[in-house]
Amino acid sequence: MANYTAYKYEDLRKFAFEIFIAIGCNTSDAEIASKVLVSADLRGVDSHGVARLSGYVRLWKKKRINATPDIKITHETMSTAVVDGDAGLGLVVAPQAMQIAIDKAKKVGTGWVSVKNSNHYGIAGYHSMMALENDMIGFSMTNASPLVAPTFSLDRMLGTNPISIAIPAGKEPPFVLDMATTTAANGKLETLMRKGQDLPDGWLQDKEGNPSNVNTGVKDGGALLPLGGDHLHGSHKGYGLGAVVDIFSAVLSGANYGPWVPPFVAFLEPAANPVGEGLGHFFGAMSIDAFRTKEEFKHHMDNWIQTFKKSNPIPGQTEVLIPGDPERRISAERMENGIPLIDAVENDLKELGKEFGVSLG
Amino acid sequence: MANYTAYKYEDLRKFAFEIFIAIGCNTSDAEIASKVLVSADLRGVDSHGVARLSGYVRLWKKKRINATPDIKITHETMSTAVVDGDAGLGLVVAPQAMQIAIDKAKKVGTGWVSVKNSNHYGIAGYHSMMALENDMIGFSMTNASPLVAPTFSLDRMLGTNPISIAIPAGKEPPFVLDMATTTAANGKLETLMRKGQDLPDGWLQDKEGNPSNVNTGVKDGGALLPLGGDHLHGSHKGYGLGAVVDIFSAVLSGANYGPWVPPFVAFLEPAANPVGEGLGHFFGAMSIDAFRTKEEFKHHMDNWIQTFKKSNPIPGQTEVLIPGDPERRISAERMENGIPLIDAVENDLKELGKEFGVSLG
Repeated sequence: MANYTAYKYEDLRKFAFEIFIAIGCNTSDAEIASKVLVSADLRGVDSHGVARLSGYVRLWKKKRINATPDIKITHETMSTAVVDGDAGLGLVVAPQAMQIAIDKAKKVGTGWVSVKNSNHYGIAGYHSMMALENDMIGFSMTNASPLVAPTFSLDRMLGTNPISIAIPAGKEPPFVLDMATTTAANGKLETLMRKGQDLPDGWLQDKEGNPSNVNTGVKDGGALLPLGGDHLHGSHKGYGLGAVVDIFSAVLSGANYGPWVPPFVAFLEPAANPVGEGLGHFFGAMSIDAFRTKEEFKHHMDNWIQTFKKSNPIPGQTEVLIPGDPERRISAERMENGIPLIDAVENDLKELGKEFGVSLG
Repeated sequence: MANYTAYKYEDLRKFAFEIFIAIGCNTSDAEIASKVLVSADLRGVDSHGVARLSGYVRLWKKKRINATPDIKITHETMSTAVVDGDAGLGLVVAPQAMQIAIDKAKKVGTGWVSVKNSNHYGIAGYHSMMALENDMIGFSMTNASPLVAPTFSLDRMLGTNPISIAIPAGKEPPFVLDMATTTAANGKLETLMRKGQDLPDGWLQDKEGNPSNVNTGVKDGGALLPLGGDHLHGSHKGYGLGAVVDIFSAVLSGANYGPWVPPFVAFLEPAANPVGEGLGHFFGAMSIDAFRTKEEFKHHMDNWIQTFKKSNPIPGQTEVLIPGDPERRISAERMENGIPLIDAVENDLKELGKEFGVSLG
C-alpha cells in the first residue's frame, strides 16, 4: 500500500519556489509559478501540482522550457491579443496573459487572449479565478498532449483540454467550473490504477478502439474518451468542446494543435513537423458592470446559488453542490491539515531537492 | 405507425412566414422568424422547427409573445451590450442581438450580448453561424424551461440550455458545434417514445430521482440528466456547462433563471414571482483577424479539419466526423428531397393554416 505524508502548503510552495529559482527563474516568476503549481495540490488536483515539478525540470534540461522568457504581445485589438510565451513555463506565461485580458476588460468591457509558444500551465482554475477580484467573469482553457480519441476515432487526437469559468457572487463563494472535456481526468485513472481497481465504463478505449476497463489502458496505448463516453451518451459533445479548446488555444494563436501538441513528458520528443509554436492557451475576462451593476448581478448570483443548493437531493445524497464547492472544501481542509503526498511523489521531490540543494519542509 | 409526408423547404418557410404575418409581425420580422424556424427542420432538429409553430401562436394568444416588439439596447460598452427583447419572438430578437455582437466585433475585435425579456429562439446554431460570413467565430446560447436535474438533485432546475460555437474554415465547410448540455436533447426522447423504445442509461431519472429508461419519463415528472449522465461519468461537468449558459443568458441580462424560466407550453403559467424578465440568451462574435490573418487561420483550420477527418475509425465505424457534418448532410438531403413531416405535425399545421386562412404547400 502507498503511504502518505502531509506537508504544509507554505513548505511545498517554498520548495517549488527554490527549485524554480535554481533553474534560473527570476524572483517574481518563481513566486507566481510556485503559487500556481501548488494551488493544484491545495485544490485536490494532485496530478497537476508538485507531482509534476520534476517533469518541468526535465523539460528545462532538454531546453524545451525557457526559464527567462521574453513574453510579449504579437498582435492586438481593443479587446483581443495574441501572446508569444517564448517557451516559458506555462505557470508564468498564463497569469501574464490572463492579466492582459483583465486589463482590456477594464477598458472596453471584455478581453480575450490566445497564447502560443507556451508549456503546461497547471490547473485551469487558477487563471480564471484571477478575474474574480476584479468583479469579472474569467475564462481559462488550454490544449495538452494528445491522449483523447474523438468520437468514432481510434487515434489520440486531443488532450484532456480543460475549460474553467469563474463567476463572482456576493455573499456566497464564487461559482468556479474547472473541468477536463473528457469523462474523467487522467489523474482519476491514476488513482484507480494505484488502488488496483477497474475503470468504469465510458472512460477509456483500448488501442484497438474497443471499450476498456483496464486501469493501465492509457499506458498500453489506449485513449481517454470525451465527456459522454460514447456516441449514444453524447461523446460527440465532449469531443466538440475539446476541439473548441484546441482551436481557440492554438489555431487562433499559432501554437501546435491536435496530434502536434508537444508531450509533457521529456522522454517523448515533440513532433518533427510542428504546425505551430509550443502549446496554446486561451483566456477571457468579462467585466460584470459591462452588463449590469455589480450589486444587481451579485444579488441574483447569490439567489441562483442558494436556490440550487437548496434543491432536494436524490436518494442516497445529502446535498446539491455548486461548481467549485468540492475544491474549496479540500482547500480549506488541506490548508488546515496539510497536503498529503504519496511516497512516490515525496521521494521524487527529495531527489530533486538533493540535486539542487533545496530541502523539503 | 406514424406516416411522414415530405414538404419543400420553401413551402414550409412561406407557410411559417404567412402565419407570422397573420399574428401581426411586420414583413422583415416574419421573414427572419420563418427562416430561423425552418432552419431547424432543414438541419434535422425537428423538435425545434415547424413542430413548434402552433406553440408560438398559443403564446401570442396568451399575450406572452409580442408580435411588434421594440427591441433595444439597455446598457453597453465598446465590446458588450444588454438587449431587452420586449417579449418578442426569440426568432426575431436573437438575430438582432447577434448582429449587435458582430457589429461590435468589427470595431473592437469582439462583441458580447446578453438578452433579457425574450422567448424561445429556435436552434442555437442559426445564430452562431451568422458570424461565419463575417469571418468571425460565433457563440450562441439560451436558457429554457426547467427539465434538467443538476447532479445529485431531484428537482428540475435547468433547461437543456444549448451551446453553439461556429468557426469558419477555408476550403473546408465550417466547424459548427450545436449541443444541448444534457446527455440527449428532448427531441431524441420524443423519437424513442414514438418508436416505443426504452431510453439508454444516463438520459433520465424518474420523479423519485432514480435512474430510469422509461421513454415517457419527462411527462411522468422525471428529469433529463446533464451530459455525463451521473457523477461517475462526469455529469457535474454537463451540469456546470448548463449552469454557465443559464447565468450568462439570464443573471448577466436580468432575465429569469433556473426554475423561474417561463415554460414554452402556453398551458403552464410562468412563475408567479419572477426574478427577471422573460427568458435569456447570450451571443458572442470574435473576429478572426483580431488574432491572426484570416488566411493563416483558414489554412490551419482546413488542416485541423482534414487531419481529424482522416484519423482512423474504430471498429464498426467508417469515418470520423467534424461538428456540423451531420446537420450539413441532412440539410443537403432535405433541400433536395424535402422535409418529412410526421402526421401529427402535418395535421397541427393544417389546423393552424385553417384558422389563419393560410394553405400548406
